[in-house]
Amino acid sequence: MKLLSFEYQGRASWGAVIGDHVADLGRAHPQYPTLQAYLEAGRGALAAQDAEGVAASIALSDITFLPVIPHPEKIVCAIRNYHDHHREVVAAGLDRELSAYPPIFLRVWRSQCAHGQPILRPHCSDSLDWEGELAVIIGKPGRNIPEDKAHEHVAGYSIYNDASVREWQFHAKSIAAGKNFESTGAFGPWMMTADEIAPTQPLKLTTRLNGVQMQSTTTADMIFSVAQQIAYASTIFTLVAGDVLVTGTPGGVGWSKKPPRFMVPGDVVEVEIEGIGTLRNPIEQAPI
Amino acid sequence: MKLLSFEYQGRASWGAVIGDHVADLGRAHPQYPTLQAYLEAGRGALAAQDAEGVAASIALSDITFLPVIPHPEKIVCAIRNYHDHHREVVAAGLDRELSAYPPIFLRVWRSQCAHGQPILRPHCSDSLDWEGELAVIIGKPGRNIPEDKAHEHVAGYSIYNDASVREWQFHAKSIAAGKNFESTGAFGPWMMTADEIAPTQPLKLTTRLNGVQMQSTTTADMIFSVAQQIAYASTIFTLVAGDVLVTGTPGGVGWSKKPPRFMVPGDVVEVEIEGIGTLRNPIEQAPI
Repeated sequence: MKLLSFEYQGRASWGAVIGDHVADLGRAHPQYPTLQAYLEAGRGALAAQDAEGVAASIALSDITFLPVIPHPEKIVCAIRNYHDHHREVVAAGLDRELSAYPPIFLRVWRSQCAHGQPILRPHCSDSLDWEGELAVIIGKPGRNIPEDKAHEHVAGYSIYNDASVREWQFHAKSIAAGKNFESTGAFGPWMMTADEIAPTQPLKLTTRLNGVQMQSTTTADMIFSVAQQIAYASTIFTLVAGDVLVTGTPGGVGWSKKPPRFMVPGDVVEVEIEGIGTLRNPIEQAPI
Repeated sequence: MKLLSFEYQGRASWGAVIGDHVADLGRAHPQYPTLQAYLEAGRGALAAQDAEGVAASIALSDITFLPVIPHPEKIVCAIRNYHDHHREVVAAGLDRELSAYPPIFLRVWRSQCAHGQPILRPHCSDSLDWEGELAVIIGKPGRNIPEDKAHEHVAGYSIYNDASVREWQFHAKSIAAGKNFESTGAFGPWMMTADEIAPTQPLKLTTRLNGVQMQSTTTADMIFSVAQQIAYASTIFTLVAGDVLVTGTPGGVGWSKKPPRFMVPGDVVEVEIEGIGTLRNPIEQAPI
């Protein structure tokens, strides 16, 4: 089942996508005003049941998408987590060593934007790059989660474009700066609940810029699996419902191309993941 | 004026410290249930006025301290921002280059603990280290804040012990892992409002472990000033009321000592900053 957060007629809600319509579950179940509250209540796996009898009465074309989880408590992102991306950054001159642990950084929720919303290129740099990624949404809270139980904590999967301001990312070894500009972390259009995607099923991930394929691989190329990432992150943090793990980007990013290709206003970037959908965003210049 | 967040008789509130008593401003002004809400309302500079006539009726010894801001939207921390700390990490084998930009990382609010609460050593590592730091609390929101206006956005100053799990910090170049274990970021005991501390006044910072001085310098040794840090961070993020900038630690951390001295259960660590106060925390072993 596809679950999403949206705005309709000036009201924020959440619901289920059924064909090209939306069932407004936030209105039908007002005790859960947000998708995050619904996940916190432990109902992620019951969405099909809770959607029964709720008319899918709103056309998808009439809603404004919101980030799947607009205000996650934590957005934990992986660095260099695909073998082919590792190879391309080594070729571009970064260090060769494969990390023995999943390297992570944090995004703030304020850096997110939704499907269809512009990714903003900041005024201070031209080096805005795409990073198509699989997003994992936590359903069941936990700390020190063992790898073999990790998938029990997943509510569903979605798509993230971890758009990065490369110049600022390389200001310092800790890359948080280039990864937190406002309206750069595109997240959507919806999450597919975990019951519809087998834990170890390789998913094809494709990123297109203006229709031209830039990244293409499957999640089988990941260096650290989703389960390993959950186990590692939960050793540090208590993971809670609505937390998002952004699991790394494959090869084919713009700055490793010769010459580099960064995103400019007027571009349209799409990230498609098999079994989930397509996240599409135009690029615009940020107001100063 | 000293403002703090606290719990008293099972109720969370905030207030002003007057001598060794607390005036419960959360109870007197219920439209601002938290210090953060009070700052969001733009009243940070009016605390003295809002405390008038409110009896300081609760003994400091009867409250449980909370982190000054328990749930900041963002905690933006500086890396290697004191010249003497830079020298010691270079001597310990890290790279020599001074960053041309303020290197930052993020903490999540869930990693915080209050004055008097234990800093927890996680089960997975013995390498828990202290980092006494000046914390800056934002009052007035802003984006792209120029350096010469930066101090207008400061509500006040406090003390942070950015306790770090060194082993996990060095798992990867992005150091977020070692900086986010739960109950490692000690924050308190209160904030001193900005009207009582001149923007460029050097403040003496001292860290003691079991009463023995480990760090001692003034904030004049900072590489990037508070104003520069606010300007840089606000180019990336919209800073909002209650956001916290943790401005870097001076020389004298445990891992640079020969042999390294990490914190162990039973230790007591104190960070004192002139004009603000003393943040004191025992070290305990985290439950698994």
